[in-house]
Amino acid sequence: MTAVAVTRREHDLLGDRDVPADAYWGVHTLRATENFPITGTPISAYPHLIDALAAVKEAAALANEELGLLESRKAAAIVEACREIREGKLHDQFVVDVVQGGAGTSTNMNANEVVANRALELLGFEKGQYRHLHPNEDVNLGQSTNDVYPTAVKVATVFAVRGLLKAMAVLQDSFARKAVEFRDVLKMGRTQLQDAVPMTLGQEFSAFAVMIDEDRHRLDEAAELIHEINLGATAIGTGLNAPAGYAESARRHLAEITGLALVTAVNLVEATQDCGAFVQMSGVLKRVAVKLSKSCNDLRLLSSGPRAGLGEINLPPVQAGSSIMPGKVNPVIPEVVNQVAFEVIGNDVTITMAAEAGQLQLNAFEPIILHSLSESITHLRAACLTLAERCVDGITANTEVLRASVENSIGLVTALNPHIGYTAATDIAKEALATGRGVAELVLEKGLLPAQTLADLLRPEVVAGTGQALA
Amino acid sequence: MTAVAVTRREHDLLGDRDVPADAYWGVHTLRATENFPITGTPISAYPHLIDALAAVKEAAALANEELGLLESRKAAAIVEACREIREGKLHDQFVVDVVQGGAGTSTNMNANEVVANRALELLGFEKGQYRHLHPNEDVNLGQSTNDVYPTAVKVATVFAVRGLLKAMAVLQDSFARKAVEFRDVLKMGRTQLQDAVPMTLGQEFSAFAVMIDEDRHRLDEAAELIHEINLGATAIGTGLNAPAGYAESARRHLAEITGLALVTAVNLVEATQDCGAFVQMSGVLKRVAVKLSKSCNDLRLLSSGPRAGLGEINLPPVQAGSSIMPGKVNPVIPEVVNQVAFEVIGNDVTITMAAEAGQLQLNAFEPIILHSLSESITHLRAACLTLAERCVDGITANTEVLRASVENSIGLVTALNPHIGYTAATDIAKEALATGRGVAELVLEKGLLPAQTLADLLRPEVVAGTGQALA
Amino acid sequence: MTAVAVTRREHDLLGDRDVPADAYWGVHTLRATENFPITGTPISAYPHLIDALAAVKEAAALANEELGLLESRKAAAIVEACREIREGKLHDQFVVDVVQGGAGTSTNMNANEVVANRALELLGFEKGQYRHLHPNEDVNLGQSTNDVYPTAVKVATVFAVRGLLKAMAVLQDSFARKAVEFRDVLKMGRTQLQDAVPMTLGQEFSAFAVMIDEDRHRLDEAAELIHEINLGATAIGTGLNAPAGYAESARRHLAEITGLALVTAVNLVEATQDCGAFVQMSGVLKRVAVKLSKSCNDLRLLSSGPRAGLGEINLPPVQAGSSIMPGKVNPVIPEVVNQVAFEVIGNDVTITMAAEAGQLQLNAFEPIILHSLSESITHLRAACLTLAERCVDGITANTEVLRASVENSIGLVTALNPHIGYTAATDIAKEALATGRGVAELVLEKGLLPAQTLADLLRPEVVAGTGQALA
Amino acid sequence: MTAVAVTRREHDLLGDRDVPADAYWGVHTLRATENFPITGTPISAYPHLIDALAAVKEAAALANEELGLLESRKAAAIVEACREIREGKLHDQFVVDVVQGGAGTSTNMNANEVVANRALELLGFEKGQYRHLHPNEDVNLGQSTNDVYPTAVKVATVFAVRGLLKAMAVLQDSFARKAVEFRDVLKMGRTQLQDAVPMTLGQEFSAFAVMIDEDRHRLDEAAELIHEINLGATAIGTGLNAPAGYAESARRHLAEITGLALVTAVNLVEATQDCGAFVQMSGVLKRVAVKLSKSCNDLRLLSSGPRAGLGEINLPPVQAGSSIMPGKVNPVIPEVVNQVAFEVIGNDVTITMAAEAGQLQLNAFEPIILHSLSESITHLRAACLTLAERCVDGITANTEVLRASVENSIGLVTALNPHIGYTAATDIAKEALATGRGVAELVLEKGLLPAQTLADLLRPEVVAGTGQALA
Repeated sequence: MTAVAVTRREHDLLGDRDVPADAYWGVHTLRATENFPITGTPISAYPHLIDALAAVKEAAALANEELGLLESRKAAAIVEACREIREGKLHDQFVVDVVQGGAGTSTNMNANEVVANRALELLGFEKGQYRHLHPNEDVNLGQSTNDVYPTAVKVATVFAVRGLLKAMAVLQDSFARKAVEFRDVLKMGRTQLQDAVPMTLGQEFSAFAVMIDEDRHRLDEAAELIHEINLGATAIGTGLNAPAGYAESARRHLAEITGLALVTAVNLVEATQDCGAFVQMSGVLKRVAVKLSKSCNDLRLLSSGPRAGLGEINLPPVQAGSSIMPGKVNPVIPEVVNQVAFEVIGNDVTITMAAEAGQLQLNAFEPIILHSLSESITHLRAACLTLAERCVDGITANTEVLRASVENSIGLVTALNPHIGYTAATDIAKEALATGRGVAELVLEKGLLPAQTLADLLRPEVVAGTGQALA
Repeated sequence: MTAVAVTRREHDLLGDRDVPADAYWGVHTLRATENFPITGTPISAYPHLIDALAAVKEAAALANEELGLLESRKAAAIVEACREIREGKLHDQFVVDVVQGGAGTSTNMNANEVVANRALELLGFEKGQYRHLHPNEDVNLGQSTNDVYPTAVKVATVFAVRGLLKAMAVLQDSFARKAVEFRDVLKMGRTQLQDAVPMTLGQEFSAFAVMIDEDRHRLDEAAELIHEINLGATAIGTGLNAPAGYAESARRHLAEITGLALVTAVNLVEATQDCGAFVQMSGVLKRVAVKLSKSCNDLRLLSSGPRAGLGEINLPPVQAGSSIMPGKVNPVIPEVVNQVAFEVIGNDVTITMAAEAGQLQLNAFEPIILHSLSESITHLRAACLTLAERCVDGITANTEVLRASVENSIGLVTALNPHIGYTAATDIAKEALATGRGVAELVLEKGLLPAQTLADLLRPEVVAGTGQALA
Repeated sequence: MTAVAVTRREHDLLGDRDVPADAYWGVHTLRATENFPITGTPISAYPHLIDALAAVKEAAALANEELGLLESRKAAAIVEACREIREGKLHDQFVVDVVQGGAGTSTNMNANEVVANRALELLGFEKGQYRHLHPNEDVNLGQSTNDVYPTAVKVATVFAVRGLLKAMAVLQDSFARKAVEFRDVLKMGRTQLQDAVPMTLGQEFSAFAVMIDEDRHRLDEAAELIHEINLGATAIGTGLNAPAGYAESARRHLAEITGLALVTAVNLVEATQDCGAFVQMSGVLKRVAVKLSKSCNDLRLLSSGPRAGLGEINLPPVQAGSSIMPGKVNPVIPEVVNQVAFEVIGNDVTITMAAEAGQLQLNAFEPIILHSLSESITHLRAACLTLAERCVDGITANTEVLRASVENSIGLVTALNPHIGYTAATDIAKEALATGRGVAELVLEKGLLPAQTLADLLRPEVVAGTGQALA
Repeated sequence: MTAVAVTRREHDLLGDRDVPADAYWGVHTLRATENFPITGTPISAYPHLIDALAAVKEAAALANEELGLLESRKAAAIVEACREIREGKLHDQFVVDVVQGGAGTSTNMNANEVVANRALELLGFEKGQYRHLHPNEDVNLGQSTNDVYPTAVKVATVFAVRGLLKAMAVLQDSFARKAVEFRDVLKMGRTQLQDAVPMTLGQEFSAFAVMIDEDRHRLDEAAELIHEINLGATAIGTGLNAPAGYAESARRHLAEITGLALVTAVNLVEATQDCGAFVQMSGVLKRVAVKLSKSCNDLRLLSSGPRAGLGEINLPPVQAGSSIMPGKVNPVIPEVVNQVAFEVIGNDVTITMAAEAGQLQLNAFEPIILHSLSESITHLRAACLTLAERCVDGITANTEVLRASVENSIGLVTALNPHIGYTAATDIAKEALATGRGVAELVLEKGLLPAQTLADLLRPEVVAGTGQALA
């Protein structure tokens, strides 16, 4: 009976280390896990990133083969290993902490090692027999962390953003459906929390929908910018060790593999040190967060009550609201969206600082950018879907309450400005407020306008100008 | 007839330059004004800083005289010039832009030059005759920008914070007076904008007052930290060119001049590079801003209306609210306070970044810290006074509206938990909400409690627990 | 002899007040100056805003005249008054504090009053005789603060951004000229502050230029978004009191007056409450700040020394650096740019919070958005010009130091990877580091490559790949 | 053979739901998991929070028993269940997402249900038989989420901060040991990255140690503030349903259970709505982050090289630095610490916004505050330990390089100011820079000082003033 080795010995710059025999990762990954016990979250928690890394490694192998730098046999094994990863296999082998020093080197090394060891197996060798296929010399051939990592982060971000865009479209549709449903529901508009002039609840929800629509366009534009990659730049953008034709070939293969219209940056030195596209993306995510938060603030305010609040709309109850107050139902879905928004806004500061801290030919802090950006995108996505499905879709209006507030309002007097003047209208408003009487009543009493004219002018639908703004 | 020279020639490291003959500032200041055309705001806009600089120069001169390093005649002239500055004279000679490179060197040079030239006049010389009394060799004797500037910023900040503390006390008193005035005004408390359980309006205003009180304590503590100075550190904290006894003597004189209980940092190397005390101060100012903003949000919400809002309180009208809507009055005072709060929170990020960017033995970015910190403090001070005097003092309560909301509320049922249980109380609340009926009515109908017991339990004053929380 | 009145009496919602007889502003402005003693900075400090307000008032008057709502005589007087303002007259009459409550109402009122009183004079009346031409009923006809103010802020911002774009182009040119000048200067590239592989100093400066170029494009895009205005929305976007055709006519006139390709938002309710375009603009300004700050950090690092630093480049001395250390010259220009960047990043947080705090049909906090945005734009503009003219243009290279660092470097070994493999190259690097010997020497000693091959591979120009990246 | 039920039916305000029969959590938890699919991180990932919740529930049960409100049998079961939880059992039953709407209600409900079901088992009942012991009526007796949740968050935070404080002490010791080790290593101090005057490397490391020491004191103070709890406040601070004596008894028991010197807030209405203590804590964590980041920036700068950098110190190599550049070693440990610092600074903005968004009697956004605060504390703790153990402890100095930089420096001339004057010293410095010659040589040549005097003045140890600053 022969003993089965439980570890294998690997070697690097610092010496020898034993790694578990069944691990696809190797000595570089081992050291990284020891060096960065920071968040406890391995990069495997970012499946878009793992897939993107595999796509980059596959594209590089194909380019290297095409240029005659890598034997076809090796290339085929690398490609096959990468495809397995992109099918979701071996994700658990990506174990380094997402927040790491080294500008992503540990992530790249982890990928190199997993791909190499799986490719070795596919070639009939054992894991660790790097003389047959080497993580750095073959898998990483013509590459550097400094072009692989940002390229993979960009590809991963594009896919993550697509998910967010879909979720935003779902939410936009929810709001838009309510805009139609509430199109005839008159209500008082408010500025600075004070009664202003009439509008419809449909207009109010339409604004929510339009905000998201605009943000989707901005997010789309920002996503365009991250289609520009620096693959082929190698260490600092000078393309050292990447032969002529490599950058273009690798880009072409990566575009095919991912289906993305990737372009290579014109100035690779600049592209290798610059995090501007991430800052821009985060800035737009922050914009999305600001709007979502504002909309949720409004939903919470409009549904305040049930008796001592505005009570204009009802959010669908989704859980009991209080451990002590029986029957209380709270706007918990908008509340959780607000919190995600605050998180995204904080993440933007983190990303800003990380980008500003780049030095000379590289930004060493891309791992935290990846982390914060991913968090912002995925949490926003979840927030949009939850808001649409568990809140907006079930909103109902308290139509009578809303209409009464219009009929009872002083703000209606604004419609009389063109007929009696701002000064006279101010006096009416003042008296209405002081006495609690109605605007129409006072205008008639003072003989400022004939009754029929007044009635025509003050029809809420007219004052709301429903036609204009919904058109 | 002799011509009057309109300029005088001065010399520095870079060569000769003509400065206006009547300027108290010299060549270093001239170059700085050319180098930093950034904000257009001269340091003279920061009178606390100018006074503090003069105090530091005076203290240094006295220490140098005491140690026999500076002739008494020169020291006396310097002291006299500094006193004139502290009396408000010559402030217009402090002309360098507040946002400047060089870690404050230009501010210090500007001070050295103004003090020197005024001292020269006092000694009977003409401005610019530096062989008799030199800006660097005499006025700056034993000093470096790197100890003078942070020390002056700290002294200036202490005085500015005192002004803020007084304004906060004024605001706290305003809230506290309203807490007493409204002590018997029952209302519904709200959590998550939903009706919760009864309380008094006095309790609500009391909370505003207590928040400020706590913040004053925190601000006081943060101000304590900036009593620690590094005068005597000179360039990098090693005290080069400052003889034994100088640091202690200068500190003692500065403490006497300013009336502040200043202490010298134990480790001057650390103290010279560290901006921690400013970060802490800004963090506490941010805390103050957060609370003020929250309180103003509440004031705006409680006064929303007049007819389609909560309408619980009335803010005093201070100006017409709208150029189009007659009679509209807006909560403009709380709104301006909110905006100051947002500014302070943004300034905190600026200060944080500036502090983080310090390198090795110095933080070169203290000028922006001074700028942002001063802005935060003075704007908060103005905001507190305006809020107290133009808003809080004139707030009135809509007592009847408030009481009705309590009597009509479902939240009252919470008081029955101990008697009928959370589960039964939930059923009552649910039915009340669905039917629009009252809690008491339903409890009686179902025979859950005897009428008198119920009446006792549901007395709003009892539910509000007025005694407990106001005690 | 008759006495000249020193005041005139005006009336508003709150009663009568005396204003100085010679003031073009009136009672609303008076109250605002009393209500908002916050920053001490009047809106006249924002000339772009004053001009934009006048342009809006002029456009509205022309539209109103066109639609038969305003007598031609009045319209002509209003137009003339507005033109005078746009020529720079009467700016001193814009006295309300830039940070104000009321969503900009006080700014709009100030404009209405100044325009009305000047128009009255032009019509032969005295200031204050509003029965002949009224600030609200005539000058503000068909308008609300809620469409006038954001429209004016947008127009003002477009012009301010144009100034910034020009300054950025100047800075880009400065960097680009240096990129050409230094195109043959070999140096070591660095990643993570560690020696990496060779490049040219020209490539380094080229990256600075390209960063700015990209940012200019992003800023241009963001400026596009603020060409969308909501004029005609009036109070809440329903267009109340603005007749059919007004919005389009006013937009057309405003476009003509300003020369800007303005468009009216499709959904005016949304446009009236949404600050997304400002958030986007601020986000891009933050991006610009991040890059500028990173570039300045690099300039300071590369010029560190003169003897104990990297000493690769020399910044032109612009002032003496120290009040104590003779001969010291500091990188004060990059330092001031860093500080402006920190300020812009903080302002972005302020703007974000203000935007998020909007409620229902309006954002009441646009004044602080205007303030922070203006500050960011104008300070960045000053920073770019100062950096170009007082720093970059005068930079020189220490060519010999730079070349020696390449020849002496271990990083050259990277170029041998394709020939001797990563593993063998690692051993060479390790030995070079430990012994202080040269890479070529060790490779030859170990017989890994023939001497001529080695010499060819290690030629710095080849390793720097000069052709590729500069192409 | 009887079938085993796989689910049990539970009931709440919204109706019936089946929960897994073996789950200790119930219907409220079930709904929450459906409502908040946001981060995927359950509260069980925050063990300090789970323990603190159990401690609060235990303290409340003991108080309720003491006051005769809860049968001893029930109280004993609850207490036992809580103790099991605090021993680490059942943590996996805390399944609601950490980011949740509802002000923490779902977390509290999750705790109530787990405690109730475990207590039921201990009493011999089956899970779900709430008529014997009810999550709300018994476990939550006299409590509300609004006092339980913030109290638990505070207790959890105190324990988390203690862990951080210990880690900071470890790091401080590491720096302090190096300060001693390097006490005689002379080097050039630098201000604004330019050579300044001599100091010792020991002084430099001593400053790092002192910074942490000060931060520990600040953190300690901030932790003091979160010992103030609002247990007994119930829903809004009026103490509804919490009888006289309850708050004090519950506090006393909680203090005993946790060993913390907890105090009850004087004004419970204020304490229930205020997040000031969390804002303060986060502000101080940000301060810690700023200092750590600055120190790591310095370490990276001082160790830059190996040949084209400052090369003053060597960080211990902990992993290969590059996938392409053989032999490269990067400062990965300081880099990861920088990133944690950026995260903490971003989290501070998140916490600030969440605190500002509180409304009226409650802040609904405490869950994101908990999340961000926990992340900041635990990541900072990991960062400090990693920095100490994997970096600082292994730092070595390049003593010869350092000494040479002092002897070769121009900054030495500063020491001559008191003897030859700033003006003459400036001329010497200028000539030294231009010619590359030494300061001493030039002074002698010009006969400004006798040779022996000069030698005495320029002894590096004297110039460094070693005695003073290390004393």
